[in-house]
Amino acid sequence: MSSSEIDTLIEMMAKLPGLGPRSARRAVLHMIRKRGLLLTPLADAMQAVAATARECLNCGNIGTSDICDICASEKRATGELCVVEDVSDLWAMERAGVFKGRYHVLGGTLSALEGVGPEDISIPKLVDRVTSEHISEVILALNATVDGQTTAHYIADQLEDRVRLTSLAQGVPVGGELDYLDEGTISAALTARKTL
Amino acid sequence: MSSSEIDTLIEMMAKLPGLGPRSARRAVLHMIRKRGLLLTPLADAMQAVAATARECLNCGNIGTSDICDICASEKRATGELCVVEDVSDLWAMERAGVFKGRYHVLGGTLSALEGVGPEDISIPKLVDRVTSEHISEVILALNATVDGQTTAHYIADQLEDRVRLTSLAQGVPVGGELDYLDEGTISAALTARKTL
Repeated sequence: MSSSEIDTLIEMMAKLPGLGPRSARRAVLHMIRKRGLLLTPLADAMQAVAATARECLNCGNIGTSDICDICASEKRATGELCVVEDVSDLWAMERAGVFKGRYHVLGGTLSALEGVGPEDISIPKLVDRVTSEHISEVILALNATVDGQTTAHYIADQLEDRVRLTSLAQGVPVGGELDYLDEGTISAALTARKTL
Repeated sequence: MSSSEIDTLIEMMAKLPGLGPRSARRAVLHMIRKRGLLLTPLADAMQAVAATARECLNCGNIGTSDICDICASEKRATGELCVVEDVSDLWAMERAGVFKGRYHVLGGTLSALEGVGPEDISIPKLVDRVTSEHISEVILALNATVDGQTTAHYIADQLEDRVRLTSLAQGVPVGGELDYLDEGTISAALTARKTL
């Protein structure tokens, strides 16, 4: 039987996405065994993040200042604006390291069923930014889901004739094997085939 | 791009068993979004555990005092001692809630290859406890692996003639389907079959 402090920690860890009660117990035991290396530094790192993390007032990225590093950097003012659903998508784009412009995080997708309208996902803010930041191209990097694509169409309607609109290419993932791909992807890759 | 504090937290979370870089990022984003409900309380809970968690000097269980609740409770002095490999096994036994005696956590198994001998896994302490705590039955609840069974045999040799020795029954798990069980389990369950 574990003590109440340990039980409390296990219960809290089990609330994290990707962890259940069993993996939370394993993680907590592991942390207790390496407490100097892991438990105390982790607690300190969490306190530091809790104290400093905030949403960028401009793009919605999560960072440690009111305006995130990307929005603050003049080098990123390329006139390109990449629209993503979520901060995790922004981070994924940054890991690829190929996009040099700025981002706009919607924080969700339009959804008639769940009552999510354009103003709930900062689309008016996006329209403002296109003008105020002299954007020449908006890249719609929304997920290839129904909601993602509906949102992309709505945004395209709003910005038509004001800016160049593009979206990420669809096709075979790098390293992907045809046998493991769905029909939709194969069909999209064939339609968008390139001349060698 | 995330800030350095957030990156540090992600790297640390990714070191926990069961989490990789991707799930650590998801967990950290989730925590930041629920910082009042999750990030700060989790940091506090970790600090509390880091400050109080320790190994029971008697049995090796992890708790918040030098002698754990189980060893401290007179009710658990039933004369039965359950030998487990790891604290997580002890917790699993306690969740079953059916064992009323005390435990002895070995903290590993004998392993000639890795140079783990009897004194490394507190077998001498176990032998002492059998005498000093007037133990009448030692239940070997070691994992059904080669190392676990080797260790069980070694302990049985040491304690032979001094105490009643038992081990957990092997058989079909409750709710288990024969089709999904390995041959060893089915064979053990058949050998240990019971008259209805």
